[in-house]
Amino acid sequence: MTRIFLAGYGGVGRAFHDLVVAEAASLRSKPQVVAIARRAGVRSDPEGIAPGAFDDAAPAADTALQFAKDGAYDVLVELTPTDLDTGGAALDHVRAALARGKHVVTANKGPVVVAYRELMDLARANGAQFRFEGTVAGAVPVLNTHDRCLTGNPVTRVDGILNGTSNFILTRMMDEGLDFDAALEEAQALGYAEADPTNDVDGYDAAAKIVILANHVLGLDIGMKDVACTGIRSVSAGAIRLARTQGYAIRLIGSVDAETGRARVAPRLVPRTSSLNVTGPLNVVRYRTKHAGPLTFVGRGAGGMETATAVLSDLASLD
Amino acid sequence: MTRIFLAGYGGVGRAFHDLVVAEAASLRSKPQVVAIARRAGVRSDPEGIAPGAFDDAAPAADTALQFAKDGAYDVLVELTPTDLDTGGAALDHVRAALARGKHVVTANKGPVVVAYRELMDLARANGAQFRFEGTVAGAVPVLNTHDRCLTGNPVTRVDGILNGTSNFILTRMMDEGLDFDAALEEAQALGYAEADPTNDVDGYDAAAKIVILANHVLGLDIGMKDVACTGIRSVSAGAIRLARTQGYAIRLIGSVDAETGRARVAPRLVPRTSSLNVTGPLNVVRYRTKHAGPLTFVGRGAGGMETATAVLSDLASLD
Repeated sequence: MTRIFLAGYGGVGRAFHDLVVAEAASLRSKPQVVAIARRAGVRSDPEGIAPGAFDDAAPAADTALQFAKDGAYDVLVELTPTDLDTGGAALDHVRAALARGKHVVTANKGPVVVAYRELMDLARANGAQFRFEGTVAGAVPVLNTHDRCLTGNPVTRVDGILNGTSNFILTRMMDEGLDFDAALEEAQALGYAEADPTNDVDGYDAAAKIVILANHVLGLDIGMKDVACTGIRSVSAGAIRLARTQGYAIRLIGSVDAETGRARVAPRLVPRTSSLNVTGPLNVVRYRTKHAGPLTFVGRGAGGMETATAVLSDLASLD
Repeated sequence: MTRIFLAGYGGVGRAFHDLVVAEAASLRSKPQVVAIARRAGVRSDPEGIAPGAFDDAAPAADTALQFAKDGAYDVLVELTPTDLDTGGAALDHVRAALARGKHVVTANKGPVVVAYRELMDLARANGAQFRFEGTVAGAVPVLNTHDRCLTGNPVTRVDGILNGTSNFILTRMMDEGLDFDAALEEAQALGYAEADPTNDVDGYDAAAKIVILANHVLGLDIGMKDVACTGIRSVSAGAIRLARTQGYAIRLIGSVDAETGRARVAPRLVPRTSSLNVTGPLNVVRYRTKHAGPLTFVGRGAGGMETATAVLSDLASLD
């Protein structure tokens, strides 16, 4: 049995808990959630915790960091809120777990963006694994496909639509002729965009994913400050209409090239029939490979259950 | 060092030989081609064979089957011509290698279509691995992504464009208004179609790939006779024109559904902006997953070097 410490119990955390229970039988390691950290504190039960069991429980004394440091578990699943500037509390949790030789699986971009090399080194030094498929493109297994299915065919460039919220907004602007503000309001009403949409519409979320792809897939060593980042606030309904009449869509594209080292996120014209032109909340990642041209991966880039499948596949790979 | 017996030395075989030499340093197992079977016979050299070294050599005495049975090698790379009816000589080579506990990597659909379960069982019984990423969608790692990156998120249906030749023909008919015969002639002149185009344009090649996906990814147990197969000979320029005016393309789509067990290959209408609508010689595979909706993979579905990258990634996974 693999004992899981689940830190963070929002949409992804709850979906992961449901999923791991539903699919436990299909996994060799028979994973079981034995501790859950929420804002109120950590509750643990070595016999395993059922989904919903702790919803009404009184606050516990332990903090997530304390449990990461001395609790009894095999794998930390880190799903607390993202902080792209400092890595947030998640960075401390990950450090504490890896330092003890515990594996870490996360969908939290913060620690990966802020401290990729430090954490990979720390994992290696302690015989642990650090996996983060869920940080990029939700359910689409772009990192693990690179790691496990493309040996001998190096990836030399990455382009992609990595933020479903801004892609939803651009799609609605294109399909319905809405201007940016109206499309953003609709996205907020539908739950695709947050009250403060900065990370999504100004391109920072996409830039964070480009940083992860650059460092992990291309072997570069860059941070957020190295990504030239333009969001979609200034994309006008008129520009989208004009592009459409010429057979193009306007999409927020993230790119990074191994040869030039140049990384950017910006609105770009994409032929409507291109496989890079995906609609609505979908994500797409296109790898340019050394020996076999482009490989393109498309799927749902966000959502609790979608991201949870990426976390579970990472967990399964630790078997 | 991993000693490779390369059976078959056509376009894919030669590309694989070039690739394995170019990328050997990046592979843990340091693979080396120590024997090559061509029509004229087998030449071997335990020190390793350089690309082109045997091009003008006199015929050798051994047959591929003889060497598979008693030659000194670790992995059989089976790239002889495909026979979808009987499995051809390749089936005997694969059986002989697996029975000795040698790993087998192939891009030859014949043995996999004709004897999937027998060969998987034989491999297991002898502690060997049988890998065949290169049989489906060329460079696109659809089988290994399923095997290694989607644990806990079962695939329940597969749809795809699995034959680049017929997709090239349909694309030319759509873009240039050509009729089928003219587009076929062009494809033959460009080397995309063979003199006898039956396997490609009548859908048998796509059907073979559907059989492999059905058995390996969906866990079904079907053969060629179970695929309802219609090719593209009867697709008219007029039908394509009409579809286009409505925002659709006509594509040769292969499908198989785990729940119904129904498998088919047939021309179908696809929205032009769908990620299933890929153009030219590209292939696309779309997995419907249980927990995260559709995942779509696009890339070059044929070509010597493209297929060789799939073979090499299988080889690397044996490390």
